[in-house]
Amino acid sequence: MGEPLGVAVLGAGNMGADHVRRLDRVVSGARVAAIADPDIERARAAVAGITGVRVHTDPEAALDAPGVAAVLIASPGPAHEAALLAAFARNLPVLCEKPMVPDSAGALRIVAAEARLGRRLAQIGFMRRYDAEYLRLKALLDGGGLGRPLMLHCVHRNVSSPPGFTSAQLINSSVSHEIDAARWLLGEELTAVTVRRPVSSGGAPEGLIDPQFVLFETERGVLVDVEVFVNCGFGYQVRCEAVCEAGSARIGEEHAPVVTRADGARREVAPDYLVRFADAYDREVRDWVDAVRAGRVTGPSAWDGYAAAVVAEAGVRALEGGGRVAVELAPRPDLYAAVSR
Amino acid sequence: MGEPLGVAVLGAGNMGADHVRRLDRVVSGARVAAIADPDIERARAAVAGITGVRVHTDPEAALDAPGVAAVLIASPGPAHEAALLAAFARNLPVLCEKPMVPDSAGALRIVAAEARLGRRLAQIGFMRRYDAEYLRLKALLDGGGLGRPLMLHCVHRNVSSPPGFTSAQLINSSVSHEIDAARWLLGEELTAVTVRRPVSSGGAPEGLIDPQFVLFETERGVLVDVEVFVNCGFGYQVRCEAVCEAGSARIGEEHAPVVTRADGARREVAPDYLVRFADAYDREVRDWVDAVRAGRVTGPSAWDGYAAAVVAEAGVRALEGGGRVAVELAPRPDLYAAVSR
Amino acid sequence: MGEPLGVAVLGAGNMGADHVRRLDRVVSGARVAAIADPDIERARAAVAGITGVRVHTDPEAALDAPGVAAVLIASPGPAHEAALLAAFARNLPVLCEKPMVPDSAGALRIVAAEARLGRRLAQIGFMRRYDAEYLRLKALLDGGGLGRPLMLHCVHRNVSSPPGFTSAQLINSSVSHEIDAARWLLGEELTAVTVRRPVSSGGAPEGLIDPQFVLFETERGVLVDVEVFVNCGFGYQVRCEAVCEAGSARIGEEHAPVVTRADGARREVAPDYLVRFADAYDREVRDWVDAVRAGRVTGPSAWDGYAAAVVAEAGVRALEGGGRVAVELAPRPDLYAAVSR
Amino acid sequence: MGEPLGVAVLGAGNMGADHVRRLDRVVSGARVAAIADPDIERARAAVAGITGVRVHTDPEAALDAPGVAAVLIASPGPAHEAALLAAFARNLPVLCEKPMVPDSAGALRIVAAEARLGRRLAQIGFMRRYDAEYLRLKALLDGGGLGRPLMLHCVHRNVSSPPGFTSAQLINSSVSHEIDAARWLLGEELTAVTVRRPVSSGGAPEGLIDPQFVLFETERGVLVDVEVFVNCGFGYQVRCEAVCEAGSARIGEEHAPVVTRADGARREVAPDYLVRFADAYDREVRDWVDAVRAGRVTGPSAWDGYAAAVVAEAGVRALEGGGRVAVELAPRPDLYAAVSR
Repeated sequence: MGEPLGVAVLGAGNMGADHVRRLDRVVSGARVAAIADPDIERARAAVAGITGVRVHTDPEAALDAPGVAAVLIASPGPAHEAALLAAFARNLPVLCEKPMVPDSAGALRIVAAEARLGRRLAQIGFMRRYDAEYLRLKALLDGGGLGRPLMLHCVHRNVSSPPGFTSAQLINSSVSHEIDAARWLLGEELTAVTVRRPVSSGGAPEGLIDPQFVLFETERGVLVDVEVFVNCGFGYQVRCEAVCEAGSARIGEEHAPVVTRADGARREVAPDYLVRFADAYDREVRDWVDAVRAGRVTGPSAWDGYAAAVVAEAGVRALEGGGRVAVELAPRPDLYAAVSR
Repeated sequence: MGEPLGVAVLGAGNMGADHVRRLDRVVSGARVAAIADPDIERARAAVAGITGVRVHTDPEAALDAPGVAAVLIASPGPAHEAALLAAFARNLPVLCEKPMVPDSAGALRIVAAEARLGRRLAQIGFMRRYDAEYLRLKALLDGGGLGRPLMLHCVHRNVSSPPGFTSAQLINSSVSHEIDAARWLLGEELTAVTVRRPVSSGGAPEGLIDPQFVLFETERGVLVDVEVFVNCGFGYQVRCEAVCEAGSARIGEEHAPVVTRADGARREVAPDYLVRFADAYDREVRDWVDAVRAGRVTGPSAWDGYAAAVVAEAGVRALEGGGRVAVELAPRPDLYAAVSR
Repeated sequence: MGEPLGVAVLGAGNMGADHVRRLDRVVSGARVAAIADPDIERARAAVAGITGVRVHTDPEAALDAPGVAAVLIASPGPAHEAALLAAFARNLPVLCEKPMVPDSAGALRIVAAEARLGRRLAQIGFMRRYDAEYLRLKALLDGGGLGRPLMLHCVHRNVSSPPGFTSAQLINSSVSHEIDAARWLLGEELTAVTVRRPVSSGGAPEGLIDPQFVLFETERGVLVDVEVFVNCGFGYQVRCEAVCEAGSARIGEEHAPVVTRADGARREVAPDYLVRFADAYDREVRDWVDAVRAGRVTGPSAWDGYAAAVVAEAGVRALEGGGRVAVELAPRPDLYAAVSR
Repeated sequence: MGEPLGVAVLGAGNMGADHVRRLDRVVSGARVAAIADPDIERARAAVAGITGVRVHTDPEAALDAPGVAAVLIASPGPAHEAALLAAFARNLPVLCEKPMVPDSAGALRIVAAEARLGRRLAQIGFMRRYDAEYLRLKALLDGGGLGRPLMLHCVHRNVSSPPGFTSAQLINSSVSHEIDAARWLLGEELTAVTVRRPVSSGGAPEGLIDPQFVLFETERGVLVDVEVFVNCGFGYQVRCEAVCEAGSARIGEEHAPVVTRADGARREVAPDYLVRFADAYDREVRDWVDAVRAGRVTGPSAWDGYAAAVVAEAGVRALEGGGRVAVELAPRPDLYAAVSR
C-alpha cells in the first residue's frame, strides 16, 4: 500500500495517548503527523519515541502541520465543536470521540455545517458498532431469522465511577453507548425516554442516583430497557438481549476461562471497557483509516452524534422530572440516512 | 409413620388430576380420600384404579366424607372462596391453588375469616417458593453476602397462550407468579406498578397485548421489572436476576445437556411449566402433607394470596390506564407476617 | 393404591438409614417392615419414630418378619452374597446397593442362582441410570440423531476420599459408576481396560495413586476415558461427553445460580454425590417400589452387577500391571439381556 | 516509529497470501518487500495492488531483493529447511510456519545450524501461544494458584479433512498444535506417547483412522490426552482443561451469542481455525515484527520446532505399532531454553 495516512491527534489525555499508540503501533497504514494539547508536556510525552510528529498547543496549528491528511479528536467534549468545524474548513476527514458535542444545539450546528459541505467528513466514536459480539447480534437481527425485534434488555455496569461523576452522567455518558447501540441495532430512532430510580446502592457516592433504570421507545414500538449501575463493584459487564418474534439472542456473557476451585466454577469478568472493548477500538480506527485512504467516510455519522445528544438530553430531563419525555429531532438533512450502518 | 393423611381433592381438571396422581403415587404419607367435580365422570376418571375414594359432585359432601382430614383445592378460581370458607368451617387445613380468589375483595374476605379463626389453615399454591433454584436464590439474598437488593430483572416466557387468554391475564395469571416471588425473595410488599407495552408480536393472537413489560416498586425502593411474553414460540423460560449492592445472582439459565451439532452448541429449553417446575410441585405438596401431619400450617398464607390479588388488580389498571398505579393494601391482621417465609 | 409394600432393610449405616427415611417419608406406596443390623442400637436408631418395624441383628430373621414382601440390601459388600441368596430362597424381590458382590466369582454365583430360578428378582443400585441428565443423554444416544457413539469422555471428582481409601478403590468403588454408566449408555459390554497414572496430587494421602486415568474399550470399538480424582479439593463433579459421528452431547455442567461478585461470575459445585444425585436415589427407589408392586423387576440386573465386577477386577489388574487387560465374561444366561435397560 | 520492516514472503498459497494481507494491511510497521513462489502468477496475484514488491520464483532471489530485512516462510514444509538455512546464511530473522521441517532429522540440522550462529534468528509459527484464551490459561498455570498441573484434557475437532489427509497427519499436522501447546503450557518436555484408535466415524473417508485418542506423558509425570477428530462435521472446536492440584481451568467453550429459538438455546461454533484463531495470527505476526524491529527474536524457537517433530514422529510410530513409544531428544544446545516462553 502507498503512503501512510498522516493523522493529527487532538488531545493527549488517556484516550488521546491510547489512540497515538494505536495509530503508531497497531493500525497499518497510518502515522501520527501532529498532536495538540494545551499541556505541551503531556503532548510531548504521548508521542515520545515517535519520529516526525509536530507538537502544538493550538489544535488549528496541528491541523495545518505538514503531512496532516486526517484528524482524530480526543480532546475534552467542550472542545469538539470548534475542532470539528476547523476540520470541515480544511476538508479533513475526522474521527471524533463521543460525545460528538456535549449539547444537542451544538450537535445540530455540526450537522448543519456538514450538510452545507454536501458530503460526510465526520465519523463519531461509537465503538460498540465495531465489537465482534455486537456485530454478530446486528447480523442476526438483520438476517431476519429471529423475526421483528420487540424488546432489548441491556445491562451496563462499571466497577466504580470517576470522582465527580453526576447522576446526569449515568445517562449522557454511560447510557449514551446504549442509545447509539439501540438505534444502530434496530435501525430506527428513539422517540421517548423514561428513567426509574431504584434505591441507590450504599456503594455509590453520597447523592449519586445509582443504579438507574432507563426505558426507551422506538419509532416502531420496540421497548429498550437499560440497567445502568456505575458503582456495582463487581466488574465491567455489558450485556444485551434482543427479544424478537421468533427467538432471542444474547451477547455479553462472560468469555474468560472457566476456573473451578473449592468455591465453585468461575469465569472472570473484565475490569473495564478498555479490556472488554480493546479489539473494538482497534477495529474502529483501522476501518476509519482504511476508509479515509480509500476516499470514503463511513461509520457513525454526525447525525448519529446529534440524535444521541438529543436522546441523552431527554433522558436527563426524564431523570429529573420523573416522567416520560418525548424525543424531538430536527429535520434530517438528505446527507444522512436515519441511522447510518 | 402413622396413618396417611386423607385428602379431599376439589376439582378433577388437569391440575386436580395431577394432584391426585401426586398424592397417590409420589408423596409419602397421604392418600386421596374424596374427590369432587361437577362432572362426575371426570372425577371418576381422575381416581380410576385408586381404592377407597368417595366421588362427589358437591364439594362440601367431599369435605364431609369419612377419613377426610385436609383439603386440596384445584377447582376453577371462582369456586375457591366458597371452598376455602367451607374448609375453615370444618377446621380443615387446606392447600389452595393460585389464584387464591380471583378478586381482591373476595381475597380480603378469606383473610378476615381466617383471622377470626385465630390460626392459619390455608396455604396458597405459589409453587415457585419450592423450586430448588428459587430456594437457592432466596438463601443467597437472605445470607447477606450480596448486600441489599436493588433490582430484580425477571423474564417469564411461554411457547403459546391458551385460547381466549386476555391481555389482563398476562398480569393476573402469568405475572402473578413473579408478584409472589418478588414479595417472597425480597421480604417486603410491592407498592406500585407500571405496565409498558412494546409492539406486540405477530405470533400473538389478534388483539392480545403480548409481550408486556411490568415494573413494580417495593417498600424499600427495589425496582422489579418483568418481561412477560406468552406467545414467544421458543420455549418456557423463567429467569430472575437479583442485582444487589455487592453482587448479582441469576437463576433460570438452561439446564439441559449441551448438544453440539453442525448448527452449534445447543441446550434444550423446557417446553412448559409442568416440566420446568415438576419437582417444585412435588416438594410443595410433600411439605404441606408433612406439615399438616405435624399439626402445622406453613408456606404462602392467605395474606400472600390477598396481596398478590391486590397487586395484580393494580397491574391490570396500569395496563389499561398507561400510568403508574399505587398498591393499596388493607390493614394486615396480626395473624400474618408481612410476607410469610 | 392398595397396601404399601413392606420392605426389609438390611444394614443401618448411612446408606441404610437414608433408605429407611426414603421408604418412610419420600416414596409413596412403601413402608419399612423390618430392619437388620449387627449393631441393634444402630438399627433401632435408624427406625426411631416409625411404628410397626421389626428390629433384628440377623438378616434372615428380618426377611422372615411379618409383612415383608421385598428386601433392600444396604449392608457392607461382603454381606451381600448371603443376603441375595436368602432373598432368592424366599422368592423376595430385592434392591441391592452396589457393588452387588465384592468379587466377580461371588457375582457369578448370584447370576447362576437367579438363572436357576428362571426369573429376575434382583435390581442393582446403579443410581446414575435414574439421574435426569443421564436419562436425557441416554435418550439422545438412543434417538439416533447424533449418529453412532465413538468416544465417551468422563470426569469423576470428589473433594476428598474417606480414610483408608486404596488405589484399587478408585477403580472398583468410584469408577464402578462409570463402568455401569458406559455399558448402559452404549448398550454393549466393555472388553478391555488400561489404567494410566498421572503424577499424584500433593493433596492425596501418602501412597494413594490419585488421580488415575482409565481407558475402556467396548465390543463395537468405542473408547471410554475416565478421569477419576478423589482428592481434588474443589467439589463433586461428574461429567460425561458422548462424541458421536454427527454431534456430541455433554452433561454435568454446573447447575447452580450464576453469582457474580468482585471475583467473577461463579457457579457453585455440588459438595458430594448425596446432593448431586439426591433425586436419582429417590427415583431409583420409587421405580423399584412401583415395579415390585406391579409384579415386575426392572432396572440394572445381576448380570450388570456381575459385568461391573469383572471389569473392575480387570481395571485393578491394569492399575497394578500397567498394561492393557482384556475383560473375560462368563457365558451369559438367557435370562439376561447383554445390558439391561 | 521509523522505517517499516521489509519482509520477504516465501510461498503464495493460502497461508502466504493471508500473511501478505496481514503484513500489508493489518500489522503496523511492516511491508512486503519481496515474494517468491514457483508459480509466478500466484505470487503476482498475492501482491496485486501493493507497490514496491519484487516478485520471484526463486526464494533466494527474494531474500536478496532490496529492502529485505526479514523473512516469512509460508511455502510447503519440504521447502522449509533450505529456506531457513538461506535466511541464516544472510543473518535474516525469520518467521517459519509450522511444521518447521517435516522430519526430525532435518529439524535437528536447523537447530545445529542456528546453534553454530550462536544466536537465535528463527521463530516458529505455533500461533496458539498468541491466542487470548491460551495466554490466560498459561498465566493461570504460571500464577501458581491452581497448584501443580496433573492432567491436560484436550479436544481438537475439524469439520472435515482436506483430500488426501492421512492417518499420520492427524498426529503430525493436527495434534502438532497440542504438542507445542502442552510443552509451552507445562514448561517441560513430552517423554512418551500412546495412540488409541476408537471405532472410526462413518463420516471419515474410507481408510482414515479418525478420531484418534492420543496420550502424552511429560518429564514430571503430567498426563496429556488429546481427542483429535478431523471429520466431526459439527464445527471447529479446540478445548483444553488443565486439571491441577487445587483447581481446574478450561478454555475453548463456545463464545458466540446465545440464540434461543424453538429448538433450544444455542451458541454458534466457529467453522475453522482461521476464524477461531484470526486474532492469534495477527498478534503472532505483530509481536514478531515488533521484536525484529527492536533487534530481538522471541517466541517459539527452532528447538520447539525440533521437539515437536520428534514427538510427532513418535506419535506416528505409536499409531502404527499400537504401543507406548518413548520420545528421545538429542542433547539441547545451550542457545535454547528447554521450552521457550
